[in-house]
Amino acid sequence: MFETILENVSQKTPLVHAITNYVTVNDCANIILASGGSPIMADNIYEVEEITSICNALVINIGTINDVLVESMIKAAKRANVIGNPIILDPVAVGASKLRTDTVGRLLQEVKFSVIRGNISEIKAIALGSNTAKGVDADESDVINTNNLEETIAFAQALSKKTGAVIVISGAMDLVTDHEKTYLIYNGHPLMAKVTGTGCMLTAVIGSYCGANKDNILEATAAAVSSMGLSGQLAYDKLSQTDFGTSTYRTYIIDYMSQMNSDLLNGGLEIEIR
Amino acid sequence: MFETILENVSQKTPLVHAITNYVTVNDCANIILASGGSPIMADNIYEVEEITSICNALVINIGTINDVLVESMIKAAKRANVIGNPIILDPVAVGASKLRTDTVGRLLQEVKFSVIRGNISEIKAIALGSNTAKGVDADESDVINTNNLEETIAFAQALSKKTGAVIVISGAMDLVTDHEKTYLIYNGHPLMAKVTGTGCMLTAVIGSYCGANKDNILEATAAAVSSMGLSGQLAYDKLSQTDFGTSTYRTYIIDYMSQMNSDLLNGGLEIEIR
Amino acid sequence: MFETILENVSQKTPLVHAITNYVTVNDCANIILASGGSPIMADNIYEVEEITSICNALVINIGTINDVLVESMIKAAKRANVIGNPIILDPVAVGASKLRTDTVGRLLQEVKFSVIRGNISEIKAIALGSNTAKGVDADESDVINTNNLEETIAFAQALSKKTGAVIVISGAMDLVTDHEKTYLIYNGHPLMAKVTGTGCMLTAVIGSYCGANKDNILEATAAAVSSMGLSGQLAYDKLSQTDFGTSTYRTYIIDYMSQMNSDLLNGGLEIEIR
Repeated sequence: MFETILENVSQKTPLVHAITNYVTVNDCANIILASGGSPIMADNIYEVEEITSICNALVINIGTINDVLVESMIKAAKRANVIGNPIILDPVAVGASKLRTDTVGRLLQEVKFSVIRGNISEIKAIALGSNTAKGVDADESDVINTNNLEETIAFAQALSKKTGAVIVISGAMDLVTDHEKTYLIYNGHPLMAKVTGTGCMLTAVIGSYCGANKDNILEATAAAVSSMGLSGQLAYDKLSQTDFGTSTYRTYIIDYMSQMNSDLLNGGLEIEIR
Repeated sequence: MFETILENVSQKTPLVHAITNYVTVNDCANIILASGGSPIMADNIYEVEEITSICNALVINIGTINDVLVESMIKAAKRANVIGNPIILDPVAVGASKLRTDTVGRLLQEVKFSVIRGNISEIKAIALGSNTAKGVDADESDVINTNNLEETIAFAQALSKKTGAVIVISGAMDLVTDHEKTYLIYNGHPLMAKVTGTGCMLTAVIGSYCGANKDNILEATAAAVSSMGLSGQLAYDKLSQTDFGTSTYRTYIIDYMSQMNSDLLNGGLEIEIR
Repeated sequence: MFETILENVSQKTPLVHAITNYVTVNDCANIILASGGSPIMADNIYEVEEITSICNALVINIGTINDVLVESMIKAAKRANVIGNPIILDPVAVGASKLRTDTVGRLLQEVKFSVIRGNISEIKAIALGSNTAKGVDADESDVINTNNLEETIAFAQALSKKTGAVIVISGAMDLVTDHEKTYLIYNGHPLMAKVTGTGCMLTAVIGSYCGANKDNILEATAAAVSSMGLSGQLAYDKLSQTDFGTSTYRTYIIDYMSQMNSDLLNGGLEIEIR
């Protein structure tokens, strides 16, 4: 599974333009490289159109937005829409402030996204206008379980239909869906939540995979989510041998992403398609 | 010692709002997670009040300030003061430029801080208006030794009395004091100075510990200083087994913070109370 | 070779003022420390003159520029020129946007640089006004080989003559030249390209080495390039023993820089002088 997706990344070395937050930007650049892409972190409004024009995908992350940055995002995104580059949105902590909610609202109005990735609280904030975000983490009351799985899939598909974007809900189980097909991905490890930016990094990897697979966004996104989850899992296995901490864990996650290939991925894939 | 402090952090997972510099922001976020807290790095003036309102502590670090950032700091801090959240100040390189001196002066005038943490040159710059800061490091002429210890305690206590904040002077020996009780903490290792941001990271950990221990700021701060120092010490012990360099050392410091607990801390604590 | 250069760094602990991008700023600060210097990352226009005045070198990196930052760069650089501090320019991705080309043009007009370091596409963009930059990486058509080596040396020397700066062209082989003497340095490893910011880090190390060797910029620069290349090489050797990924590799590179000394460097130096 996903052989062609990974092969395309490896062959094309997609250039990924990221307008992202300054907290996790370095990790995002490194994991784009590790995933087989090449990152350009350029946010200046006077150059974002030119930069995005030489790239294969655009990643927009609202982690630390300001007025100028939002204008750059929109300018870059409109250009990416024109030239047909996939755009990935990470609505970090949307729902935690009016600024974030308004910004995401405006982005969704002005830009056609290929993928929107968030935790369940963030996706709910977008879909339902609810506001349960407890900062950057998902609220416990929102967590997906067997009782609300069908309902969650339905609402993610509705959001996909409405926005035209593939929807990714990250969590203990990851959900990737367009309005028809849904991937449930069980790879990953809870300790990933103790490393800042694993969500941002996943969004960056989605950018890399989609940049090399423009005609197959759903599958590319599912492959990226699986790769990231499996990297977190393998990193935890390695970590538990050395009995060490969360910073070594961060290093190992990116390390495994840099070693990811079809064999490794298929050897560890825990996925269900509906 | 410090059992309750660490227990509270572990139970409450304090949300820490940090308005900090872009050099060490990622390390600060990761060490807040490692320490048992949850970080939110939000600096936009249109959201800082909302963000701080859902948090348990506010960390302000002037490492890379600009005009807009200072206004965000003050807005967030005033809100934190109203709701009774502890605010921790890291006056990075104050004394090295008029901008920094003026900024800290204004912050101290408009905000009531719970803790102020700096190296001896930074604290002197605040307390005495002296200007001996050699960039981000303490000047050698300022270093605390047996000859000037009593005098240093007295001046730190005077600054505590004046500001109402617990004062932390970081160095080979760390000093933590309010106007009555003083902790002298001997944990730590000189190699920590060869990793950028160990001071910023300590300030972030203080935010995490104080956020979960609002009624016991002095002890929470002393516990944070001890935890960070011991993490640096244990990391050095581990490093010396593998004979490796300063970047691995950085990783190990955060690793040990993620493993810190009462047993580990009390097994290594080198502390004197006056 | 380079004994005096490294001895001076070790003895003087040069203060390096860096106005740099927010993607790799933390790595730059850490590698300046690892190389024996002390970093100050200050970009506020109201303080850059004061900060640069207490430093020994200035590093300017255009990775993520905005209008305000460029003014800060010029203000700091003019002050550094007055007091005779070496200034190192990293023209990241110049040629990839009009903004970057114009910014570098203006910097070269207003500031006298001691060293300019880029990949071959960046240096060509400056020297020839060509625009072959494929984002942050060199374009394949530009790569130096035996067929174009003489020509490349000649054009680098012409650029050195024109700008008065030592020119560094980073690549599989690194070229360091003023208008008379040329170092060809074969240290390094291709995997360095899979870690973000190895170029930025090298520029930061050049700042550190030049800051302690103001009267010997060419040799200091060649020493820095060799140290960085050898660190990458030794890091790869160590990595291949553990069979691990690009994030561990990043850690090891900085680790080896923190262990660099004359013996280690001369034991691994692969250099040719013309």
